[in-house]
Amino acid sequence: MTQEAAQPPRPAVTRKDVARYAGVSTAVVSYVVNAGPKRVAPATEARVLEAIRLLDYRPNAAARALKMGTSEMLGLIVPENSNPYFAQLAHAVEEAADRRGYVLLLANSDGTLTKERRHLRNLAARRVDGVLLASVVFDPDLSDLGSADIPAVLLNQWRPAAGISTVGVDLRAGGRIAVEHLVRHGHRNIGLVMGTTVANEEDPREKGWLDALGAAGLQEGPLLHVPFAREGGYAAGKRLVAGAQRPTAVFVSSDIQAVGVMRALHEAGVRVPEDLALVSFDGSPDAEYTWPALTSVQLPLAAMAAAAVDALVGADRAQPPRHHEFPVELIVRRSCGCGG
Amino acid sequence: MTQEAAQPPRPAVTRKDVARYAGVSTAVVSYVVNAGPKRVAPATEARVLEAIRLLDYRPNAAARALKMGTSEMLGLIVPENSNPYFAQLAHAVEEAADRRGYVLLLANSDGTLTKERRHLRNLAARRVDGVLLASVVFDPDLSDLGSADIPAVLLNQWRPAAGISTVGVDLRAGGRIAVEHLVRHGHRNIGLVMGTTVANEEDPREKGWLDALGAAGLQEGPLLHVPFAREGGYAAGKRLVAGAQRPTAVFVSSDIQAVGVMRALHEAGVRVPEDLALVSFDGSPDAEYTWPALTSVQLPLAAMAAAAVDALVGADRAQPPRHHEFPVELIVRRSCGCGG
Repeated sequence: MTQEAAQPPRPAVTRKDVARYAGVSTAVVSYVVNAGPKRVAPATEARVLEAIRLLDYRPNAAARALKMGTSEMLGLIVPENSNPYFAQLAHAVEEAADRRGYVLLLANSDGTLTKERRHLRNLAARRVDGVLLASVVFDPDLSDLGSADIPAVLLNQWRPAAGISTVGVDLRAGGRIAVEHLVRHGHRNIGLVMGTTVANEEDPREKGWLDALGAAGLQEGPLLHVPFAREGGYAAGKRLVAGAQRPTAVFVSSDIQAVGVMRALHEAGVRVPEDLALVSFDGSPDAEYTWPALTSVQLPLAAMAAAAVDALVGADRAQPPRHHEFPVELIVRRSCGCGG
Repeated sequence: MTQEAAQPPRPAVTRKDVARYAGVSTAVVSYVVNAGPKRVAPATEARVLEAIRLLDYRPNAAARALKMGTSEMLGLIVPENSNPYFAQLAHAVEEAADRRGYVLLLANSDGTLTKERRHLRNLAARRVDGVLLASVVFDPDLSDLGSADIPAVLLNQWRPAAGISTVGVDLRAGGRIAVEHLVRHGHRNIGLVMGTTVANEEDPREKGWLDALGAAGLQEGPLLHVPFAREGGYAAGKRLVAGAQRPTAVFVSSDIQAVGVMRALHEAGVRVPEDLALVSFDGSPDAEYTWPALTSVQLPLAAMAAAAVDALVGADRAQPPRHHEFPVELIVRRSCGCGG
């Protein structure tokens, strides 16, 4: 800020001064200032903090970034961090980054490619040590990172991409196990409430739905495309209820949409699972707290976040880019017709 | 990273080189690189990006931070960004910061003071231009920011604090209007499900509950303290159901806890609002999608986030610290007994 820039330069108190005053090594001062990577005994930490306060030492991350060629920052771009799925993902990424001594720059693309690309440029300009991108498209253009040698990893990807590490689950298999479960409950008319993508790409979960129907010799139930949001699910639910050929079961492509579908069903007096069974996707904490509780295909978010961070700044960073595929698991609750 | 640090220094391509190549002013190059503050026509932007790519220009935010005395970063510390309330708050802060050209460093304290203080030190070391803290206590110690002249603002504060700007709502008034509404529905035994704080401070919402009961000449219903989490609300709901003097209405101190309470009530076959009416606090999107939909005291999060960011880096930053109090509003849905 202008005010600070206008101040006269201060006599430089260095890390060495702090170390001497506190009677510790400069490394210990660093551990305290950077809150890691090694732990410092509480008494020693208190001594260092007192020295920092008395000498008015100001560690300067910007200077350090210039000198070391690292900003110790990672950037995360998600469509919307208030969507419970991305909220959880952001939390897991922050935790994984923090464990490695990195802080997280968080940016929301609000589901638009324009904003996503603007954030990529912005993060590149800030010389983050890596970018984690949950893109609004399956095949994002990373040229906005420039040639700044900033490694990136794509989150939520179901397939490998050329020259970049990707992290995700087999969406097609996930869709299939969800629908197979509904088939085993005896359903013959199984619908699909699917999200929409910016680029109108086909979501593999749709193929998974078709796979399971085909294997069981069933015809396609109604298919609705609505935004990945509570409101989207709510709109889909109302259309399902009003439709002539109402299915007896529906696979919904995200928990947040399923929450919206359930609201529409409750309002219309359609009972879950008796009149309409539901299986959803994500396995977020919300799924456990709907009424009835949602059966959902769960993604191992913490492991996925850790793998993404490691691909950028962990031991894996020397490895060539690759696809990290994680297993999904069907968490059976009550919305499918199980339990009681 | 070590690898990068080992590379020989590159010949410096400057902003001026890019401007000359693209046939624009250096200011326009800045606007493109920093994605603002002024808009650039798409055709011009494309020309600048092409020049950046061809010349391999790497704008360096670290160098800029040293020179300008600003990092154009704000730090946000919340207890847990995956809690829907803080997810929404973080989104609103990110949006407000982005509009002013700042990026957001997000850190989770996981509800512990130790981690909160470690993050404060870490953000200070990174010379952020300001810190927004949603502390786990009502009276946080900011000495960990050191004497680095880093302005801070406390979020979720219900009262002024010495020497620092605070942003929040009148929690006591919020609690009172919630309980007054239940009183108007004719309830005589009104309980309270309250969150817990690290320092065992009294939450003013509890006083608001007492205010409304006192004004109506009612005795205190059951009072339960449980964590601000779905699980906390679930545990409280089970205790309410099992209790001898089951209340006919309950005020719950957060939407996330109310979601848990409702699960326990559903499981026990206790109907909302017929057997037990609920009013909650936060007004998050979740509240609209529970069954029945939650009547909740809504906080104006977007306005609160914008005020907090402005206090740090907006026109307000020259003003002396003050308390920014925002109004709350009771959003009436069905859980209280209204509607049908």
